[in-house]
Amino acid sequence: MSDLQPLGAFRPAGASTEAPRLGVLCGEAVLDLAAAPALRGVLPDAVLAAPVLNPLLALGPSAWSALREAVARALAEGGGAVEPALLPRAGIEPVLPFEVADYVDFFASRVHAETCGRILRPDGDGLTPNWDWMPVGYHGRAGTVVVSGTPVRRPCGQVPGPDGTPRLGPSAALDYEAELGLVVGTPSAPGEPVPVDRAHEHLFGLVVLNDWSARDIQAWESAPLGPHLGKSFATSISPWVVPFAALKDARAPAPAPQRGPLPHLREDGPGALDVDVVTTLNGQQIARARAAELSWTPAQLVAHLTSNGASLRSGDLLGTGTISGAAPEARGCLLERTWAGRDPLTLLDGSVRTWLQDGDEVVISACAAAGEDLGEVRGRVLPA
Amino acid sequence: MSDLQPLGAFRPAGASTEAPRLGVLCGEAVLDLAAAPALRGVLPDAVLAAPVLNPLLALGPSAWSALREAVARALAEGGGAVEPALLPRAGIEPVLPFEVADYVDFFASRVHAETCGRILRPDGDGLTPNWDWMPVGYHGRAGTVVVSGTPVRRPCGQVPGPDGTPRLGPSAALDYEAELGLVVGTPSAPGEPVPVDRAHEHLFGLVVLNDWSARDIQAWESAPLGPHLGKSFATSISPWVVPFAALKDARAPAPAPQRGPLPHLREDGPGALDVDVVTTLNGQQIARARAAELSWTPAQLVAHLTSNGASLRSGDLLGTGTISGAAPEARGCLLERTWAGRDPLTLLDGSVRTWLQDGDEVVISACAAAGEDLGEVRGRVLPA
Repeated sequence: MSDLQPLGAFRPAGASTEAPRLGVLCGEAVLDLAAAPALRGVLPDAVLAAPVLNPLLALGPSAWSALREAVARALAEGGGAVEPALLPRAGIEPVLPFEVADYVDFFASRVHAETCGRILRPDGDGLTPNWDWMPVGYHGRAGTVVVSGTPVRRPCGQVPGPDGTPRLGPSAALDYEAELGLVVGTPSAPGEPVPVDRAHEHLFGLVVLNDWSARDIQAWESAPLGPHLGKSFATSISPWVVPFAALKDARAPAPAPQRGPLPHLREDGPGALDVDVVTTLNGQQIARARAAELSWTPAQLVAHLTSNGASLRSGDLLGTGTISGAAPEARGCLLERTWAGRDPLTLLDGSVRTWLQDGDEVVISACAAAGEDLGEVRGRVLPA
Repeated sequence: MSDLQPLGAFRPAGASTEAPRLGVLCGEAVLDLAAAPALRGVLPDAVLAAPVLNPLLALGPSAWSALREAVARALAEGGGAVEPALLPRAGIEPVLPFEVADYVDFFASRVHAETCGRILRPDGDGLTPNWDWMPVGYHGRAGTVVVSGTPVRRPCGQVPGPDGTPRLGPSAALDYEAELGLVVGTPSAPGEPVPVDRAHEHLFGLVVLNDWSARDIQAWESAPLGPHLGKSFATSISPWVVPFAALKDARAPAPAPQRGPLPHLREDGPGALDVDVVTTLNGQQIARARAAELSWTPAQLVAHLTSNGASLRSGDLLGTGTISGAAPEARGCLLERTWAGRDPLTLLDGSVRTWLQDGDEVVISACAAAGEDLGEVRGRVLPA
């Protein structure tokens, strides 16, 4: 785990009024970046002592690797230059690791896109005509991204009754979506698209992401401008951002496209993340899928997002969209898993789920194909 | 104009490396908030000396009115407590007045929504079934909101050819949208909807907004998740935020709804903005519409946005959506005005527009029905 050097922000447990500090997760300890004598001077004090990762993200790849090397050296040497700054993980409380600039959620899994299309538009084709040509995506609400462990209150919203008249009430179709989130480090210049082969200069790292979704609210509101309140109540992320620099071996080729892509989205070499994503509901594993099966890779998401000249900011968060495979136990949300509630899921305790119930706890975790633990995002449903 | 006390951020003209300062627009002068002896101690120094309005926005209505009163008093008294801080407007350059937190764009004009529906979905109903029941909206890109005067480069994007295969190229259907933008001041608590009758505690002020739109990119990408790259390249706002406290008389009743709204969206009294919005293209007026004709009011937008528990942050920007009236010269974008290019607009110089050409300058200005100037947003199209 210390090789990965996941970065985050934390407070001493229970000290909710203290300013957060930055740390590196080292197994069962956390290295306080601003308190470690061995790290002094490696980066500007204001970066190491910031309450969020954004200033570090903005510095770019050479600063990130300078910090990685200094941390590795310090941990290897041990002693007084590092030990006073090593805190037991159990004594700290992670907080949101970075201020989310813009949050864009994509739809990069062919299985997910096709299954949702068949469920929601049974008379149409599963995939929309654009799907093979671009990573379809939309902006989500940055201000309601919360850190793992934050309870999620069941949202209220409008849902139409049988006569077409809506009423306001608690969502009766609360769902999770198992995703990965890509964290942008280096900003890009307005008007200058980032090509696929330079995207890695802008992508800092990876979190696990739960894109909570109220399917009934979403279905009623989405025409013609897309999802909004069915998603905007909360998005949860894991607290420790795993740098892509630690994941160089966790790459695999993306599935061959059926058509396209256009030249500006072509990627040579294995660009997909060779990462498995596992979902548990109240402790029972209910899904496992491979991010390597996503059709659009992190570099392609960045290239598409900036192809119109839109710029990136440090702290932009890019969700991959639900990670699903073809088998029922590889479907990354209940919409797919229960076919919108028509095919309920029976849990080991005998209880049945079409959608999430109050009190349910969803934990999504990720591990590299080689087995390294990439963290987890956890959230429990509170009643409306 | 000094009664309005529009607030913004500026630099001395040409001093692009200096940190921005906050100011109040007073006719042809700007009062530097941090430099005026008369304002010392009215609010914390860190608020008055910030480079963006966000810390002031976060303080809430009582701080906003304390500042308004102090500015009015200082200007009335004149003399040494204010004159050293009064700068000629011609000598300063406004910058983006606040850091945009989340940007949500709504679709509050019935005429606009219905006309777009008839143009884009000629076989369907103009309005989607949800339209009468909620202010439909979606999240836009906060990081590409730019201040008036920033040139806007024509975006590239994917557009399908006659055989359905897309190619990447400059948009051939660049459009403007004349809107107002509402600026959120006081944040709201996660999980706590803001009722209609308390929305004014959270809304600080008003800007004029141009939601630049590439209609060809938008049409191809929007199924099923809504607009994205067809909008995300740029959104322009006017630099001086007019406080709602100055617009108490600029209110009118919104048009009576045809159905709904549900109780949580009901508003008593005149909630619509009695503001006219005028668009010029290369100096020629091409449209004039009334924001009072929008079906959904600022308070209703806030109540809907937070009805699922989503919280507001200081600096959230809420676009009303295109402001259109029924007459051709009241249509607030070229999509409507030229019926997607089928009915071109002939300008006074004899040239013809279906969409915007390179070099075109669009200026959208707003004035209260009583005639007060609420500012303008200006942008010129650069070639791709």
